[in-house]
Amino acid sequence: MNSTEIIGFTAAILTTAAFLPQVYKTWKTRDVSSLSLPMLLLFFVGIVAWLIYGFLKDSPSMILANSITVVSAFLLIYFKITYGKK
Amino acid sequence: MNSTEIIGFTAAILTTAAFLPQVYKTWKTRDVSSLSLPMLLLFFVGIVAWLIYGFLKDSPSMILANSITVVSAFLLIYFKITYGKK
Repeated sequence: MNSTEIIGFTAAILTTAAFLPQVYKTWKTRDVSSLSLPMLLLFFVGIVAWLIYGFLKDSPSMILANSITVVSAFLLIYFKITYGKK
Repeated sequence: MNSTEIIGFTAAILTTAAFLPQVYKTWKTRDVSSLSLPMLLLFFVGIVAWLIYGFLKDSPSMILANSITVVSAFLLIYFKITYGKK
């Protein structure tokens, strides 16, 4: 792995790690009151665009980070729709 | 601008736009109880790494997005330290 991708993977691990506790907290507490569905949808589409961009720029770091984050964002949308009904 | 950067800028606008309401909400409400300082610090270092990566990959989209987000993350850390004291 070259030095550029070492920095990229460091970034990928740090920003992904910072996002996962939100998913865990939402899953455990089922409190989705502070989550905005339009914002989650914007974010989800944005992450999909970053993922496509990662493939176009031939960036393993971006593909890794955004593949994990797209699943996290999808789960938050699912929680918001499911738990928000109550 | 080529098609790769059009996708990148779309991603940059969407994910940055999804993050700004959190900064605004925290600034208005001064409620930092649900923000974790270690997580914010991890996220901040991660964004700095993405910014360096953006320069190394010669990616205008990543440089734009992460320049804005690094300021947002810094503000959240500042709010957490300042408002968290009360």
